[in-house]
Amino acid sequence: MRNLKMTITYDGFKYKGWQKQKETDLTIQGKIEAVLSKMTGEAIQLVGCGRTDSGVHADNYIANFHTKCAFSINTMLDYLYEFLPEDIVIKSMENVAERFHARYNVKSKTYVYRINNNKFRDVFNRKYSYHLAEKLNLTEMRNASEVLIGSHDFQSFTNSRNSDKSTSRTINYINIIEKDGLVEIEVNGNGFLLNMVRIIVGTLIEVGKGNLKPIDVKKILIEKKRWEAGPLAQAKGLFLRDVQY
Amino acid sequence: MRNLKMTITYDGFKYKGWQKQKETDLTIQGKIEAVLSKMTGEAIQLVGCGRTDSGVHADNYIANFHTKCAFSINTMLDYLYEFLPEDIVIKSMENVAERFHARYNVKSKTYVYRINNNKFRDVFNRKYSYHLAEKLNLTEMRNASEVLIGSHDFQSFTNSRNSDKSTSRTINYINIIEKDGLVEIEVNGNGFLLNMVRIIVGTLIEVGKGNLKPIDVKKILIEKKRWEAGPLAQAKGLFLRDVQY
Repeated sequence: MRNLKMTITYDGFKYKGWQKQKETDLTIQGKIEAVLSKMTGEAIQLVGCGRTDSGVHADNYIANFHTKCAFSINTMLDYLYEFLPEDIVIKSMENVAERFHARYNVKSKTYVYRINNNKFRDVFNRKYSYHLAEKLNLTEMRNASEVLIGSHDFQSFTNSRNSDKSTSRTINYINIIEKDGLVEIEVNGNGFLLNMVRIIVGTLIEVGKGNLKPIDVKKILIEKKRWEAGPLAQAKGLFLRDVQY
Repeated sequence: MRNLKMTITYDGFKYKGWQKQKETDLTIQGKIEAVLSKMTGEAIQLVGCGRTDSGVHADNYIANFHTKCAFSINTMLDYLYEFLPEDIVIKSMENVAERFHARYNVKSKTYVYRINNNKFRDVFNRKYSYHLAEKLNLTEMRNASEVLIGSHDFQSFTNSRNSDKSTSRTINYINIIEKDGLVEIEVNGNGFLLNMVRIIVGTLIEVGKGNLKPIDVKKILIEKKRWEAGPLAQAKGLFLRDVQY
């Protein structure tokens, strides 16, 4: 059996997220598995590096699958390129060790959230950024983001109702940069709970607007109550940028 | 009467070009005139800086209109922002002299054509660039572009059948830059014939592929036969970047 690792980019705008679902045909995993299964004649099951929410984009999503198919990597890439929808592209593929697992082996992931902080919407990026005309205080947002760095229980920052599993995660860094009114919030961590990046961003936006202070974010983290944190930021601004193994 | 000059950005993907047409509601001019007429209670007629083809985009299109409306510029901008479709935005507006005319007063215009010259399509820019996997020879394209600089009869580079009007135009410069596989062809000239930028680009692409030599472009220019030039490049890669007055 071969084990193949793929790097995938997708415009998530019209999809219900990465994970295959019985209720809908519109998932990234479902679209790719269908083409791979047709290509190989096998029932291919993809192992993805994690779930991305409905509407979230990816620059470099990682997945792997096992197959007996002997096609060359270029042949497979060409086949996938031709038969996948125009908003999903497999950028590269490589043979990896049998034991490689796209989810279990993740060391960390980098997400980027894009906010158009100019007065008007950007007609060319309206599906790939969240528009907020009110000027954000980036210094306060950076101060608040420092509270979140390190290992913490992020229970306040998830919409998951699964209380059996640990909600402890480690955030390695949060960078907030701005260029021509486009604010990018880059978050790197060892793992993320359901909606965690978007709730962190939603909370930092409240800080940027002056509705919360950095010290409030510390309280929110300690009190472990979802309703104290900010709202869920819109999916269309979020990109899975990279996965580190 | 006030004379107001507007700077407009639009995603032209779904529109039939700038100019109002009886057959369709989907024109940029038509959409803006409808909102302005409603706002002012007058039958507003826009003077645009020129026509853009169906599917072509604009970063900074210029138009002007006369009105008796006394609203402040900010009020007008807010009204337009709210009632125009999401793919059209009036970026700014200013009071100008009565004699200002957005078309007659144009000194030059800058267009940019974007080619994604990477192996695969870019899922996020597929509506805003032309994808060509075959590697272009940019040096040859730059050499060929030099042939076009200056004042020439561009009859070979237009699809216009109006033989009464002069087809002489002056191209001031053509810059071809490349970054991360994205090739941008910037063309500045004192005026452009119907489809002229897209036929110039289509011809330069033929040079980049090795199907034409720079010296062939000189011949095409001299012979004044449309069918000798390259094909019409796809509209979705073209942006009206700026207008100089």
